Amino acid sequence: MYVKNCWYVAAWDHELMGESLMPRKLLNQAIVFYRKSDGTVAALEDRCCHRSAPLSMGKREGDCLRCGYHGLKYDSAGNCIEIPGQTVIPGGAQVRSYPAIVKHSWIWVWMGDTAKADIALIPPAVGFDDPNYILRGGQMDYDANYQLVNDNLCDFSHVSFVHESSFRVMEYSESLPQITRLPRGIRVQRWLHDPPDRPDFVPAGDTWQVYDYLAPGVLLMHSALYATGTAANFTGAPAGIEPLHANFSSQAITPMTDTTSRYFYSMGPRSFEKGAAELADLIGVSINKAFAEDKRMIEAQQRTINEQGFKSTPIRHDSGPAQMRRVMARLAEEESSAAA
Amino acid sequence: MYVKNCWYVAAWDHELMGESLMPRKLLNQAIVFYRKSDGTVAALEDRCCHRSAPLSMGKREGDCLRCGYHGLKYDSAGNCIEIPGQTVIPGGAQVRSYPAIVKHSWIWVWMGDTAKADIALIPPAVGFDDPNYILRGGQMDYDANYQLVNDNLCDFSHVSFVHESSFRVMEYSESLPQITRLPRGIRVQRWLHDPPDRPDFVPAGDTWQVYDYLAPGVLLMHSALYATGTAANFTGAPAGIEPLHANFSSQAITPMTDTTSRYFYSMGPRSFEKGAAELADLIGVSINKAFAEDKRMIEAQQRTINEQGFKSTPIRHDSGPAQMRRVMARLAEEESSAAA
Amino acid sequence: MYVKNCWYVAAWDHELMGESLMPRKLLNQAIVFYRKSDGTVAALEDRCCHRSAPLSMGKREGDCLRCGYHGLKYDSAGNCIEIPGQTVIPGGAQVRSYPAIVKHSWIWVWMGDTAKADIALIPPAVGFDDPNYILRGGQMDYDANYQLVNDNLCDFSHVSFVHESSFRVMEYSESLPQITRLPRGIRVQRWLHDPPDRPDFVPAGDTWQVYDYLAPGVLLMHSALYATGTAANFTGAPAGIEPLHANFSSQAITPMTDTTSRYFYSMGPRSFEKGAAELADLIGVSINKAFAEDKRMIEAQQRTINEQGFKSTPIRHDSGPAQMRRVMARLAEEESSAAA
Repeated sequence: MYVKNCWYVAAWDHELMGESLMPRKLLNQAIVFYRKSDGTVAALEDRCCHRSAPLSMGKREGDCLRCGYHGLKYDSAGNCIEIPGQTVIPGGAQVRSYPAIVKHSWIWVWMGDTAKADIALIPPAVGFDDPNYILRGGQMDYDANYQLVNDNLCDFSHVSFVHESSFRVMEYSESLPQITRLPRGIRVQRWLHDPPDRPDFVPAGDTWQVYDYLAPGVLLMHSALYATGTAANFTGAPAGIEPLHANFSSQAITPMTDTTSRYFYSMGPRSFEKGAAELADLIGVSINKAFAEDKRMIEAQQRTINEQGFKSTPIRHDSGPAQMRRVMARLAEEESSAAA
Repeated sequence: MYVKNCWYVAAWDHELMGESLMPRKLLNQAIVFYRKSDGTVAALEDRCCHRSAPLSMGKREGDCLRCGYHGLKYDSAGNCIEIPGQTVIPGGAQVRSYPAIVKHSWIWVWMGDTAKADIALIPPAVGFDDPNYILRGGQMDYDANYQLVNDNLCDFSHVSFVHESSFRVMEYSESLPQITRLPRGIRVQRWLHDPPDRPDFVPAGDTWQVYDYLAPGVLLMHSALYATGTAANFTGAPAGIEPLHANFSSQAITPMTDTTSRYFYSMGPRSFEKGAAELADLIGVSINKAFAEDKRMIEAQQRTINEQGFKSTPIRHDSGPAQMRRVMARLAEEESSAAA
Repeated sequence: MYVKNCWYVAAWDHELMGESLMPRKLLNQAIVFYRKSDGTVAALEDRCCHRSAPLSMGKREGDCLRCGYHGLKYDSAGNCIEIPGQTVIPGGAQVRSYPAIVKHSWIWVWMGDTAKADIALIPPAVGFDDPNYILRGGQMDYDANYQLVNDNLCDFSHVSFVHESSFRVMEYSESLPQITRLPRGIRVQRWLHDPPDRPDFVPAGDTWQVYDYLAPGVLLMHSALYATGTAANFTGAPAGIEPLHANFSSQAITPMTDTTSRYFYSMGPRSFEKGAAELADLIGVSINKAFAEDKRMIEAQQRTINEQGFKSTPIRHDSGPAQMRRVMARLAEEESSAAA
């Protein structure tokens, strides 16, 4: 079960170059992406309507795509417009096309009803082209259902344990963040006090952190560091003071199949900060290390669930994941109601 | 569903040497092949009747086979004739035996009713021992059902696209061949005119090509090159003139399992042609390259079908594959009618 | 179907060192083993009750175990005693614990009803710490159901064929051993006469061999070599004479899953024999080679059964395996009757 009427991150913008045909799998569906001559992206079902060969093994001809097996040619809307050896194109000779948009350095694809594709629903991620930030990015493939990654990203209490060796902060697990419901997700915010046993690699100060987690799996996070003691002056978000340092992170988890997912992420400081490029590099190394720790744990969790069955006892820190799962269930329910 | 009352190519004759026991899988059935002292081939079910160990892990004793686990001994008809530790052989102590024949450099095995095994049904392939031709051969394993390979070999319109870089001929897809039905297959024939944009590696001239495609998956093809313009003088086969060059190709696709197949092939010029051996070498290199292109496409097609389901829109070039599938269906139907 | 109320060998004692958490799978169940501070072994279900992460990716804290995902802490009885972010432990927050005992160099685990775990049921294997023997050991993983290994070890007629190149003795298959039923297994005993065609690597003499095969899959074997001709003086076990040489072997096969098994074994001479250490080394090399021959055959048998189905014709040498299977079926039946 997937929420389909939303934008999924299919790839980084820079992955789709020149004449190349880029096959990707999203929500179990094989899709071939290519650039049209105006630079916009076409996304077609990656299965020829003739004998089911993958169109991604064919080639671009202008804004069209020709199958590499028996030569059927499709326009970017998925209509077959040429069949070698005959002049008549039979009805039904077409493949599905998907709305696709390049924004914030990502290629987004709409997996549901085309008529409802709304560009305003693309989450306000920050791309590499944003002059306000210097970002470093990466990606990882998960042998796990994407919901387990959603769970992970909606509950940072795991940071105390999974990331003990990279950026351990015990406060994440010792107390609960403030969580509010959004129309298509949740907002998670909290103060993290300068810890008495702070590791050397963690800068001194109190941190204000707020992130939105949006359907189907997009995390947009702002973190800001203030002088130690600042947290005591605010019950919620700080106001009227400038942070010592601030950064932004955009992350997206996309289901490839029911058992595999692709995780895209970037993070970095504001561009005008002193030593911003060096700091961005440090952050890049740090998140690659930390996110590998998540992957190791979540894939092990998935294997255990597969082999031993799923066992669950609710705890208080489940609030974020539980609320997010309810948002997703509601959106899916709205879709099936609208379809009925 | 397989046609069983026919000869399948199990291996090249030269694969079965000396004392060796050769395990092969055909139509999901495990069979062990070995040579008897007179050089003929025995083919037994590769599963001991005692505890299901593979007999191919045992050893030959004269014309018999002894299981390598607990020592049961079988004659070449599959009857157990010795059990260590006892003198009585219980009824039912036997394994299935299959009729097997060496002909045209291939080992053929009859997978159906032994009483109906008819040597006259072995297709007239050309083997390495034929003095009229100099052949080069090869083989490939497919991760695909053999019917997809049958489809490919019954419709050469794919040559224009799949083999664009090896021996592209656009005429294959631009016009249709003549197809006639045979008792156990189809005959495909056509002229190919000297193309205006002929690549350097294709010799000049008009080509007459005729091949029979016979159940369960044997292609026997004759190609002959004539002076440019010859095609204009004939509506069908050329008569009364000698070709500049001619070659013959024997090909067979055998289902190993429902999802894997083995492809055997040879091709080469008439032995008396000038530079025949060098030409045979060139042809050998060429078909290995081209058939790897087919394999890449067909395996991708199979993966797409497995993952995305089969989608099909009929086109005119499907005539060959469609007729061949009807032949196979009719033969299977005749078998089940005869069995009932 | 497994007999559960018995002790299974989970590992060698020496495999579980220091602070390490040792994940193992037995009878399809994931279990994590660790040492408590007193050196005894704790065995817990390897699946956190919170969100099914494997506890083996956490860490030891004293005699307790903390999950590495969200930090739930368990005592060695499997009770959750700490949940970060809350003070109340909900009912049902626990994982299963298994009785585990170190004995005879092996870690044994009781897979059934904890109330029935009886240390007296641990078979009298010989461990490395026994001063009477000098042993060499090894282990192998099987891609096969453990019952096929049980069958193999309850019928040594296979030695004549499977081990033809390592320690071929034709008498194993030519005549039948004496087999008697035990409460939880079978006893197999026989004389092996000095063979006329004895290979050089087999010492001269008559051998008396007796082994018990005990549920669920433990072989305990005593072999003794006497002067050639001794066998003629006894109908059963020799009495009143000292052997020229004697050795002991302990072996255990444990189901990891329905399709995989782990085989543990040791063998060696009495410690006071001349050149005992060198002899132990020779024996160690010999059994590693021989048991690899069993593995090759049994895994092939399993593959054939998986792909071709199981076919069986009973022979006289099946008596041992058949009786052992009946013992196992009876024990399983007693368990389900007691449970009902």
